[in-house]
Amino acid sequence: MVVLGIDPGITNLGLGVVEQVGKQARMLHAEVVKTTHGEPAPARVGQLYRAVYKAATTFRPQAIAVEEQFFYRQNELAYKVGWAMGAVFLVADQLAIPVYGYGPPKVKQALVGHGQADKHQVAYMVRAILGLKTLPKPTHLADALAIALTHCFYHPLRSNKPLS
Amino acid sequence: MVVLGIDPGITNLGLGVVEQVGKQARMLHAEVVKTTHGEPAPARVGQLYRAVYKAATTFRPQAIAVEEQFFYRQNELAYKVGWAMGAVFLVADQLAIPVYGYGPPKVKQALVGHGQADKHQVAYMVRAILGLKTLPKPTHLADALAIALTHCFYHPLRSNKPLS
Ligand SMILES: [Mg+2]
Repeated sequence: MVVLGIDPGITNLGLGVVEQVGKQARMLHAEVVKTTHGEPAPARVGQLYRAVYKAATTFRPQAIAVEEQFFYRQNELAYKVGWAMGAVFLVADQLAIPVYGYGPPKVKQALVGHGQADKHQVAYMVRAILGLKTLPKPTHLADALAIALTHCFYHPLRSNKPLS
Repeated sequence: MVVLGIDPGITNLGLGVVEQVGKQARMLHAEVVKTTHGEPAPARVGQLYRAVYKAATTFRPQAIAVEEQFFYRQNELAYKVGWAMGAVFLVADQLAIPVYGYGPPKVKQALVGHGQADKHQVAYMVRAILGLKTLPKPTHLADALAIALTHCFYHPLRSNKPLS
């Protein structure tokens, strides 16, 4: 199974592609797509769309997994993360890829074993599971890989549901 | 000038197209695009994208104007309005149409003359300005036409800025 993990954001969008075969998982690709604050919003969303589309057509994931966080510090932040998600959903629609969402406690539970783990423990486990030489960086890239691995963990349990 | 006004939402997205020639404005088109609660999010966002794309290629607006509201009752609502905006921005990017945002007080100021007007007064003025036989309905359709007219009002003043 190939999974495209996404840490959504309008200024920084983390993309991580993971392939799982049996109990083995490896990283196929990871990047952070950056858009410029102050650029027109259509250009920023268009840039995210093209980056996600390219990753999805290159690696042909069976699923897209996104970090879902409803309790943003501000309304405006939630709104702008939504812009990025619009681009992700359009790629998913056009390529017929289901999209799953996981909140931070689900990620921590899957990778570290309890929902109260800190960011560093998650990055450490991402490194260990994927056999990376160093800790994944920056944070948005590590988060995207963690989300992809989270989907690999929950999917066989069938306890997840596509976003609606 | 042709303006596509949008009242964004994931379940109900209002679309209103207005043409202004000199001091005269007329309605070219208005509809509410509805998506089904519980359908997969990619299908819903894809449906909105196609509807906005169709309106934009049919009527060739010089600008898209959207209702902007940062103070949603809930974070989750702001997030999901953002999904719809992602679809709108992608159409705008692909067809190179600038997008402008106006908050409710700006709409009321433009159409009624003061920022505290109520919804009914706005709908009444939309009807009067566009010479409609009846009050525009439903609300999201009236809102979309109001936003398009708001852009017609502010644009010559050059007091607006594309969304970023
Ligand atoms: Mg409305």
